[in-house]
Amino acid sequence: MSIGKAVERKDALAKVSGRAKFTEDFAVKGLKHAVYVRSTIAHGRVTAIDTQKARKIPGVRAIFTYEDVPQNLFATAGHPYAMDRAAADVADRLLLTRNVRLEGDEIAIVVADTELIARQAAALVEVEYETYTVLVTPEAVLSADARKIHPGGNIVGAHSYEVGGEIKVAEKEAEIVLEGEYSTSMVQHCHLENHIAYAYMEDSGNIVIVSSTQIPHIARRITSEAIDFPVGNIKVVKPYIGGGFGAKQDVVIEPMVAFLTWKMNGTPVQINLTREETIATTRTRHPFYGKARGGISGDGELKFLDLDVISVTGAYASHGHAIAFAGGSKTCTMYPRSVIRYNAKTIYANMPCAGAMRAYGTPQVVFITECLMEDMARKAEIDPLEFRLRNVGLPGDTNPYNKQKILTHGLKECLEKGRELFDWDGKKKAYADKKTGSLRSGIGVACFSYASGTYPGNVEIASCRLVLNPDGSVHVHVGATEIGQGSDTAFAQMAAETTGIDYVNVKVISTQDTDYTPFDTGAYASRQTYVNGQAVYKAAVGLREKILTYAELITGQAKEVLTIAGDRVVYCAQPEKTVLTLRDLATDSYYHKNRGGQITSEVSFKTQTNAPSFGCTFVDVDVDIELCKVYIKKIINIHDSGKIINPMTAKGQVHGGMFMSIGAALFEELLVDEVSGRIYNNNLLDYKFPTITDTPDLGCAFVETDEPTSSYGVKSLGEPPTISPAPAIRNAIRDATGVAPDRLPMSPKSLFVQFKQAGLI
Amino acid sequence: MSIGKAVERKDALAKVSGRAKFTEDFAVKGLKHAVYVRSTIAHGRVTAIDTQKARKIPGVRAIFTYEDVPQNLFATAGHPYAMDRAAADVADRLLLTRNVRLEGDEIAIVVADTELIARQAAALVEVEYETYTVLVTPEAVLSADARKIHPGGNIVGAHSYEVGGEIKVAEKEAEIVLEGEYSTSMVQHCHLENHIAYAYMEDSGNIVIVSSTQIPHIARRITSEAIDFPVGNIKVVKPYIGGGFGAKQDVVIEPMVAFLTWKMNGTPVQINLTREETIATTRTRHPFYGKARGGISGDGELKFLDLDVISVTGAYASHGHAIAFAGGSKTCTMYPRSVIRYNAKTIYANMPCAGAMRAYGTPQVVFITECLMEDMARKAEIDPLEFRLRNVGLPGDTNPYNKQKILTHGLKECLEKGRELFDWDGKKKAYADKKTGSLRSGIGVACFSYASGTYPGNVEIASCRLVLNPDGSVHVHVGATEIGQGSDTAFAQMAAETTGIDYVNVKVISTQDTDYTPFDTGAYASRQTYVNGQAVYKAAVGLREKILTYAELITGQAKEVLTIAGDRVVYCAQPEKTVLTLRDLATDSYYHKNRGGQITSEVSFKTQTNAPSFGCTFVDVDVDIELCKVYIKKIINIHDSGKIINPMTAKGQVHGGMFMSIGAALFEELLVDEVSGRIYNNNLLDYKFPTITDTPDLGCAFVETDEPTSSYGVKSLGEPPTISPAPAIRNAIRDATGVAPDRLPMSPKSLFVQFKQAGLI
Repeated sequence: MSIGKAVERKDALAKVSGRAKFTEDFAVKGLKHAVYVRSTIAHGRVTAIDTQKARKIPGVRAIFTYEDVPQNLFATAGHPYAMDRAAADVADRLLLTRNVRLEGDEIAIVVADTELIARQAAALVEVEYETYTVLVTPEAVLSADARKIHPGGNIVGAHSYEVGGEIKVAEKEAEIVLEGEYSTSMVQHCHLENHIAYAYMEDSGNIVIVSSTQIPHIARRITSEAIDFPVGNIKVVKPYIGGGFGAKQDVVIEPMVAFLTWKMNGTPVQINLTREETIATTRTRHPFYGKARGGISGDGELKFLDLDVISVTGAYASHGHAIAFAGGSKTCTMYPRSVIRYNAKTIYANMPCAGAMRAYGTPQVVFITECLMEDMARKAEIDPLEFRLRNVGLPGDTNPYNKQKILTHGLKECLEKGRELFDWDGKKKAYADKKTGSLRSGIGVACFSYASGTYPGNVEIASCRLVLNPDGSVHVHVGATEIGQGSDTAFAQMAAETTGIDYVNVKVISTQDTDYTPFDTGAYASRQTYVNGQAVYKAAVGLREKILTYAELITGQAKEVLTIAGDRVVYCAQPEKTVLTLRDLATDSYYHKNRGGQITSEVSFKTQTNAPSFGCTFVDVDVDIELCKVYIKKIINIHDSGKIINPMTAKGQVHGGMFMSIGAALFEELLVDEVSGRIYNNNLLDYKFPTITDTPDLGCAFVETDEPTSSYGVKSLGEPPTISPAPAIRNAIRDATGVAPDRLPMSPKSLFVQFKQAGLI
Repeated sequence: MSIGKAVERKDALAKVSGRAKFTEDFAVKGLKHAVYVRSTIAHGRVTAIDTQKARKIPGVRAIFTYEDVPQNLFATAGHPYAMDRAAADVADRLLLTRNVRLEGDEIAIVVADTELIARQAAALVEVEYETYTVLVTPEAVLSADARKIHPGGNIVGAHSYEVGGEIKVAEKEAEIVLEGEYSTSMVQHCHLENHIAYAYMEDSGNIVIVSSTQIPHIARRITSEAIDFPVGNIKVVKPYIGGGFGAKQDVVIEPMVAFLTWKMNGTPVQINLTREETIATTRTRHPFYGKARGGISGDGELKFLDLDVISVTGAYASHGHAIAFAGGSKTCTMYPRSVIRYNAKTIYANMPCAGAMRAYGTPQVVFITECLMEDMARKAEIDPLEFRLRNVGLPGDTNPYNKQKILTHGLKECLEKGRELFDWDGKKKAYADKKTGSLRSGIGVACFSYASGTYPGNVEIASCRLVLNPDGSVHVHVGATEIGQGSDTAFAQMAAETTGIDYVNVKVISTQDTDYTPFDTGAYASRQTYVNGQAVYKAAVGLREKILTYAELITGQAKEVLTIAGDRVVYCAQPEKTVLTLRDLATDSYYHKNRGGQITSEVSFKTQTNAPSFGCTFVDVDVDIELCKVYIKKIINIHDSGKIINPMTAKGQVHGGMFMSIGAALFEELLVDEVSGRIYNNNLLDYKFPTITDTPDLGCAFVETDEPTSSYGVKSLGEPPTISPAPAIRNAIRDATGVAPDRLPMSPKSLFVQFKQAGLI
């Protein structure tokens, strides 16, 4: 049996040997290179553009400006098509624009023989602007006289709900009511491989796009919409991809390469963004500004949470208000027995466009929630862990927002397991007298919840095709994309488990090609093992049945007495006795002249459930008061992600997520000038991404529940690890110093101000 | 309805616009180039090889010799795996050899940064040989003291049968018995695109091969056998291909590129053969040497045919005796009411290796047969057309060889139609007095038969998957390969016909990728429309059913009252009334949250029938006695290929085949020196391939029968047109001059000898 074992990743050798081929490793002959001409201002309008000098550079093949592109607005968010058009993403983009909304906005594009020539020529395009006041802060954006960044105004979306009772009633029952303001910063995904794509045409009717994307089938649809080209005539190929974290759940450059090859008679054209372009002009994480109120009873019962948030999407909507929407819903599964009000608004601003980023708004809302929870516990003088243990949801609780019963809810168990592994009580005692002096010690905890997919917000479709090869091995075809998270490995384990075939003989086709790949919307929302796992399961049941039926046909043994073990068909009753090998069976099915055929099994399936996952972080910090620097001595994440398919890859996911949250907690912030809209740190030297020397040992543990709505008992694991470390660190800093930081990152620069204010320095 | 219409080829725009991408148009970065070190002798053994000088050339990355390759012999013929191992192809190859069997044999290979460097280095590899007597002619090869070219001896295979009665009985009944010797020459396919393939690895376990091949799934299997690498871990991709004609139904370079990348740690390596290498060292058409006897009654009834042939496969078996086997069987369907004896032998020789070439031995045996038929008619003073009309098979006749009833037999109708279209009787009369002088006129006719696929010789498996796209268009996935013959277009017409969906909205994925493509053994044996057409039909019936079932689900209209018309679901009774568009239906199936899924239909199928196709050529020539030159004034092929799917592409096939046969009749011969084994004309300047100026207007007509074993009434059409023109031209020359040529080509050089012998000059 394969599930639950730390089998080697399917892509391990390809990646460690450097043989894995990424988009840039392939090409078609005659490839041309495209470079954007980007605005040098953050808000305004192009009044004149002169491409004459640029066109004279030898090797320049074409220049397109905002005047040359289709005028149909499109949305770039990587969501399935919404049958309910009212729920569709905001279409506010053109391929190129004369209306500048951020520094680096795309107003023209140069295509040349080499990237260097294209960059030289792009720099020679002369642009004149009419400039407008730059709107960066929510106050500026929402002020009555603010210019509309988009024709529809500066608010992308808003919603509000109050569930589990009424705040005004709960407030009366509360003995302690606390209010706080907490905010998070704009950070960037920093995936290793920048955005890259190329396109070419094989005839005048069909476009091929090769792209580093999380969502090939969606990229195909959105390209179709953006350039008004039939979706059936576009094919998107996704080779190995060097990370995405949500930045590539957005259709950033695919429509443009498709447009260019189309307009250039099929000439192959590539866009390969620089790190600077990727950081400042693709997608970021929405900064959130939260006002939070909560009330508790005297003995620590959480009566209500009242959250009011503003999410800033920057220059374009991208995923827009969906982020604030999704981020807010998790509080209801964490604390389902309290009254919860959530009021959210997403606004434009003249700064980089925010999109999907690992955990999709949840780190922001959970930061706000878990800061407030901590501060209420402190105010009530209740141990913060005890406070959470008392109030977190339990199996069988009902989510007050969607009225769904929560079948598996391991949060309390996670907290209890963490208490023990972390030695919460021992550390608490030990640090009681380390709250003064230059180096102070503290501990913190924070909880989270997350979803498994997007249902019922979006359709959850997944498909799988299994093919028995002539040598008895199996190919797994899925539209669900391996983006480094290990999904291919998990699917292979699932198929091996259910068919009975050796894991080593189950191979997942890692490259998606929308012409061939069974339809799936791609890698996002931590949906793969939960949603697509169910398609793999059904396909594997089907394949096993077909193999045993064929074994019966050629051996005359009733299929009921047969089963598959490794590379053989055996007797159920005597698994050591080979009836025939899968190789012989497959050879017969392919090559016998009068029977058989290729043995395949295919399903396309819609999931109509969505199981919440849970977890928490415990962290132990030293804070150097003079240096305003935080040292993480121990940090551990405990997850209820249902059953764990592969403990090794699961651990990898947890480590990566924790690292990302530590970065957001202590280091990272994309700095934008409030007057000019200019980005100060659009490179990895100035954008203080933590390195391995900044990273503590990362602890991780699992509480394995068995989620009944899932084929293999799994729940989401990809994004969850990046949610709770930041608030846990914040709470530990508060424990150590008495100072309660209210914004991210808690960098020395930021802590200095707060420590000074508190009189610590 | 789409079938029977001259719809535009699916690849027309790609090809005429130059956008179609062939193997050489793609690459992976870091591609290295491999060039063979070829023997300079035709028979011998390498005694020493020194690669030191070559290795010193900057840019040389590796050199492998016969000492470095696996020692397991493999077969290269593009056949399905034979479950009956006694019927397997002859395994007589190594990747590189020290035992030289033809000039240009492959003894080492150099891999370098560029092809030029590799060629320079290859020329510096020093080789010493022990030389053996070169064996070229059948007499030399079969002489008692001839050295064994391969360890098993010089005969590759032999078989003999006598059907429809006994020759000795028939001979007694015959009033005229005639004996003749006829031979055909070694010609080459001359496909536009030479053999080219490259391979790379994405990890240590998987090899990707991109190749110009007719048989991607077979290339995968044979590569697996040749280098002992699991077949499930090899993928073969076939982009557009620039012709094959059977030369690419052989696995010529794929195992080597796979071996090279494997041994070079996954480095991408390409082999791109030159025209010279392609002509002289890949595959040719087997020259045949025939002794034929026949007997007829006084009133022109064919009593028996007794054929004794030697087929020369050259240095390696490749398709070997299968060619002589298949070529001989057609006489039984042409003249099923006579006694037929066929005795065939295939031998090795120290000359280029022969393999599959359009019509697979049939042009050779039919040339022998139709020369003898002509000569018997002349001897009996019967009109050659009348003689054939009297003796050809009729519907309901039984093939005396395999005892199968011939359900559709249009040969007599073809002859009658040709008689009229060609004006046989008028021309015969008009030319009666043009048999003397410098310019003499004559007419000729010849018949042929062919098979539709290879059953029961080989398994005939075909698969098809249809996918309904989100825009209501359909993708057709087939393993059957488009190699220029128009199969993609035919499959699209079939799918359109059966589903009811517009042809323009049915798209065939032209690139095969063995990881994804449904299993099919590829393009050969004129099997595609007959064999794979049945898979397309079944898949299309399935797709239509699924679409209508889904329409019922979402509209509530009983599916029995619905049908598909173009891009809409309509009422059967009111086809003008739209129930819903396919786009809306597909959108619902993909994106409705609680129902549907991707709508696909897949079948994998084994054909267990094989319908013979028929036809004939009529030709009108002038022969310039002094110049020994033949002018074709009119030539027309008439075909019974069952129903014609697309008259335009069918005509294209007929024209191409006729052109190829005219080349073989009058121009082409690969010349080998009988002493040295050297090839004199391994290039397109010296190999007298006819050009457009040598080509007359090519006439073509069809007799459409409706073959009941076929889904769409079709029978083979790809190869047949190249069978009967050569003997028809020979017979016309005989008619014009009284000289009966007995060998191909009937070039001026050859006719000069015969005319001189006959005293004409």
